[in-house]
Amino acid sequence: MSVNYKKLLDQLYSETKDFARLGKVADYIPALERISGDHFALSLITEKGLLYSSGDHTIPFSIQSISKVFSFAMVYRKIGTEIWNRIGREPSGTAFNSLIQLEHEGGIPRNPFINAGAIVVADLMLSFCNDPKTSLLNFVQSLAGDESIAYNPEVVISERETGHRNYALAHFMKSFGNIHHTVEDVLDLYFHQCAIEMTTDQLARAFLFLAKEGKNPLNGEEILNPSRTKRLQALMLTSGLYDESGDFAFRVGMPAKSGVGGGIVGVIPRQLSLAIWSPALNERGNSIAAIEAMERFTTYTTNSIF
Amino acid sequence: MSVNYKKLLDQLYSETKDFARLGKVADYIPALERISGDHFALSLITEKGLLYSSGDHTIPFSIQSISKVFSFAMVYRKIGTEIWNRIGREPSGTAFNSLIQLEHEGGIPRNPFINAGAIVVADLMLSFCNDPKTSLLNFVQSLAGDESIAYNPEVVISERETGHRNYALAHFMKSFGNIHHTVEDVLDLYFHQCAIEMTTDQLARAFLFLAKEGKNPLNGEEILNPSRTKRLQALMLTSGLYDESGDFAFRVGMPAKSGVGGGIVGVIPRQLSLAIWSPALNERGNSIAAIEAMERFTTYTTNSIF
Amino acid sequence: MSVNYKKLLDQLYSETKDFARLGKVADYIPALERISGDHFALSLITEKGLLYSSGDHTIPFSIQSISKVFSFAMVYRKIGTEIWNRIGREPSGTAFNSLIQLEHEGGIPRNPFINAGAIVVADLMLSFCNDPKTSLLNFVQSLAGDESIAYNPEVVISERETGHRNYALAHFMKSFGNIHHTVEDVLDLYFHQCAIEMTTDQLARAFLFLAKEGKNPLNGEEILNPSRTKRLQALMLTSGLYDESGDFAFRVGMPAKSGVGGGIVGVIPRQLSLAIWSPALNERGNSIAAIEAMERFTTYTTNSIF
Amino acid sequence: MSVNYKKLLDQLYSETKDFARLGKVADYIPALERISGDHFALSLITEKGLLYSSGDHTIPFSIQSISKVFSFAMVYRKIGTEIWNRIGREPSGTAFNSLIQLEHEGGIPRNPFINAGAIVVADLMLSFCNDPKTSLLNFVQSLAGDESIAYNPEVVISERETGHRNYALAHFMKSFGNIHHTVEDVLDLYFHQCAIEMTTDQLARAFLFLAKEGKNPLNGEEILNPSRTKRLQALMLTSGLYDESGDFAFRVGMPAKSGVGGGIVGVIPRQLSLAIWSPALNERGNSIAAIEAMERFTTYTTNSIF
Repeated sequence: MSVNYKKLLDQLYSETKDFARLGKVADYIPALERISGDHFALSLITEKGLLYSSGDHTIPFSIQSISKVFSFAMVYRKIGTEIWNRIGREPSGTAFNSLIQLEHEGGIPRNPFINAGAIVVADLMLSFCNDPKTSLLNFVQSLAGDESIAYNPEVVISERETGHRNYALAHFMKSFGNIHHTVEDVLDLYFHQCAIEMTTDQLARAFLFLAKEGKNPLNGEEILNPSRTKRLQALMLTSGLYDESGDFAFRVGMPAKSGVGGGIVGVIPRQLSLAIWSPALNERGNSIAAIEAMERFTTYTTNSIF
Repeated sequence: MSVNYKKLLDQLYSETKDFARLGKVADYIPALERISGDHFALSLITEKGLLYSSGDHTIPFSIQSISKVFSFAMVYRKIGTEIWNRIGREPSGTAFNSLIQLEHEGGIPRNPFINAGAIVVADLMLSFCNDPKTSLLNFVQSLAGDESIAYNPEVVISERETGHRNYALAHFMKSFGNIHHTVEDVLDLYFHQCAIEMTTDQLARAFLFLAKEGKNPLNGEEILNPSRTKRLQALMLTSGLYDESGDFAFRVGMPAKSGVGGGIVGVIPRQLSLAIWSPALNERGNSIAAIEAMERFTTYTTNSIF
Repeated sequence: MSVNYKKLLDQLYSETKDFARLGKVADYIPALERISGDHFALSLITEKGLLYSSGDHTIPFSIQSISKVFSFAMVYRKIGTEIWNRIGREPSGTAFNSLIQLEHEGGIPRNPFINAGAIVVADLMLSFCNDPKTSLLNFVQSLAGDESIAYNPEVVISERETGHRNYALAHFMKSFGNIHHTVEDVLDLYFHQCAIEMTTDQLARAFLFLAKEGKNPLNGEEILNPSRTKRLQALMLTSGLYDESGDFAFRVGMPAKSGVGGGIVGVIPRQLSLAIWSPALNERGNSIAAIEAMERFTTYTTNSIF
Repeated sequence: MSVNYKKLLDQLYSETKDFARLGKVADYIPALERISGDHFALSLITEKGLLYSSGDHTIPFSIQSISKVFSFAMVYRKIGTEIWNRIGREPSGTAFNSLIQLEHEGGIPRNPFINAGAIVVADLMLSFCNDPKTSLLNFVQSLAGDESIAYNPEVVISERETGHRNYALAHFMKSFGNIHHTVEDVLDLYFHQCAIEMTTDQLARAFLFLAKEGKNPLNGEEILNPSRTKRLQALMLTSGLYDESGDFAFRVGMPAKSGVGGGIVGVIPRQLSLAIWSPALNERGNSIAAIEAMERFTTYTTNSIF
């Protein structure tokens, strides 16, 4: 396919930027609330390593739940199928249902991308890493090829102060025996991973290993084998956008992961990785302009996984 | 890719046939209960129209919920996006949850492939077809290129006699105003569509339009445009195997639809359609040997949508 | 206690009549919708048989769910403790929960006063009565000492036409095997019992057997033995006012049963029975002025079961 | 009524002691697990102050959830109807449902006797008491007329170590803004109140104020006015025995409160208070022999609130 990606990203930038006016910047912590809703960034990197960008692609933002892909990949790589003793791999329905399901299903979260699931992943990471916060950051830096990526300490503190629901989830799972470390230790790691800051350029690069059948494109290292790479992308497709995953698969047709910081990163296997950032969210907590841009991307290029 | 599909299907036949011993033939109606669990059939058709088969590929069986793809395609083709006023497009979680969600979400089923959703589709079909039972059968026959495909009247009667839960769903949605015709008329159509009988050869052919970007491969007629074809396959991926959809996407990585008759049909866009039948089901109501064969198919060919 | 009941009822009439303005007459069927919200009636009968009334105490109204006490008493008298194999005796929480609970608890309704429970009671009545509609009416007539009490056929028809949710409940329980007759037969009886019309004078009389330790005050016949009479009143206290039962016990402190026709009947054991009718309902489906009058009754007389 | 209560308690002791064999001593903390299931104690005190006892009535045991009546009475006395801005007064159905209901109902627990409700009561106590642990103990001591009543520090520690579900509830309600102090402070008080130890003699005395229309029988002090006393007893009747409250009202017909230590205390207004202790619990967490003895008590005396 001979798409002029730079031109396409610029076109998507102008066509979809104003969709942000229909949404609302996350306001549950001050550090997110004060971000201007005007930011808009798009970065695409091809499996050959060519990077195209438009807008604020050099401004770091809080990746929030996008980090769940990184922590899951680290743990999946380390312990493989054992992870499925502790977490499921089915879509969860609404946040409302996820709580009922935890009760129903003995404290086993439905998948690694709902909060409960990512908290169990953090618990697992504590079991085999001496210094999981450093290991996780190193892992992300090595994927993005950029050592400047860091945690935002102010965000960590805010997450901790407002994270009552995550405390509730962690204690609830601990009552079922599905959290092995102290809730404080587990959530300290979890709140840190949510507070990683990256640019769309860095994010697109860091997700490119998925489009390379699991290999770090910078050094050829196998992060996940092809079969596990397929599986991780299937999880992203069915569960990557909270309760909007089905709708996103329907409209866009790309495995992807979103965060309440306004970022979304998607992958077309063997082809490319695409990261978009616009802070204003729809009522389901996903970036409204980023989804619109993603949908137009697959429509205009008639390129999707389907 | 130069796979010898005939040889591969024969290999899958012998490797996975015995998985049926771990499952159980559906027993809620006599017409299904008396089917031998020994049947096993695999049919694959390429986008070029080459058909490969193994096992009992000429024996018709009850397609049950696989019919939901046909009825949905007919209605989606007719009324387009209006359908989303009456049905959602998110995975439903468990059957248990689907009932709660109906209550929560004002009688709007989560997607067209859970029973509640397919019942709404039947209600919609009654609104624009004079003789929906004939129209639906004609549609399936034209896709498969085979006029011998028929309803099994004995199965229709059994479905009606044991369908208390479907009656409950239909009345419940009617209480929310989301069923416009009488419950008897809607369920009569619904029970008929579940009672269609087809062989795996016929099923593989009838699903090939999805791999042809929406065109009937026999006559070039556009069933759905490419964008809607993409969307239908996204629905199949996120919701095609009941509460096992996430797991199936994870293990197999193919849009597919299953039925309690033991059939599963999957598609790899622009490449092929694959129908497998083995009557013994796992506890989530999907054919245990068919899933195993599908997983090995994508693993051996390293071919999936991811 | 030497309360002047006539004077007290008149006082309650003037003090609480206007509370009806805060409520809304049931509008789901025309026959109820057209009732004037201005009606207000209070009737009290002492265990000695002295009747006191105020307001529209000679105008019949639709007793609706109040009939559940009559049908339950008939069946409990007939089959005794066996009834608990088919129905529970715990409060149900919200209507929303009652559906979840049916699913959770194998189709066994939580108590005989939620709709699902009363539908099972109707199913039981069909098992031992040749002509249950006549038997039920005769039973009510004998308790009230008044053969003019009748079904309103127009209400029966309306209930049937709008009763989709009750059809859903009945089919749902039938799917669990907890309805033994046809849904049509069961609901025909159920819709009839809801359509009984009575005055507050008749209702107060008909509930007096509960204040007489189970004996029909008109002829001394034992309807229920003292132990079962106690048990029925305990059910009324914990479950007689839908999701407002706890609040009513808290505010009023009297076993009682309400209906969406606007009637409430309460009992103080060994003392009296009190029936009040005001058609305007609060958001939980109970008569707003009747509850207010009942609360003032127990507060002014400092007489309750506590 | 001229019942020989001493003889009756002795009779109940021998008749119902062995029901304990059908149950199981609470084993979630060591301090409860090691209690012998052979203990059995019954104490009754009349509104005139006459005390009758049988069995181990001088051995203190962990009152656990029975303490919820004491803490609620303290807070209700202090802030009156304001308490209903923070807690409901409806039965909760199952523990399972109580969690769903918290989500549904904005973090407002259904009543003060489920754990979530008692945790909110503890939070309220922290708002108006300088030293709530001392105040609560003094309150209980003054009702029982016995300054030896104390917290068991070992039980407090065990509760804290195993109380993950209570932590989850508290954090969950805090996420809705319905917990105003730190979760640690609130649960420290809550775990203490559960760890109060009393004998059945002390418990019967301490509940007698309810049978005296709210007055402390020892000094005539008004704990609650008659109307609030009625209301508290209504709450006990509809919600005092967890998910067995309806059944207990049905079988026994007495406002009561149970604890997982095996104690149950019931009241017949204006007559008596009855405390029974037998550590073996049924599957719903209530003392199996104590319930049986209570039922026989109301059956033999034909005395209940109904």
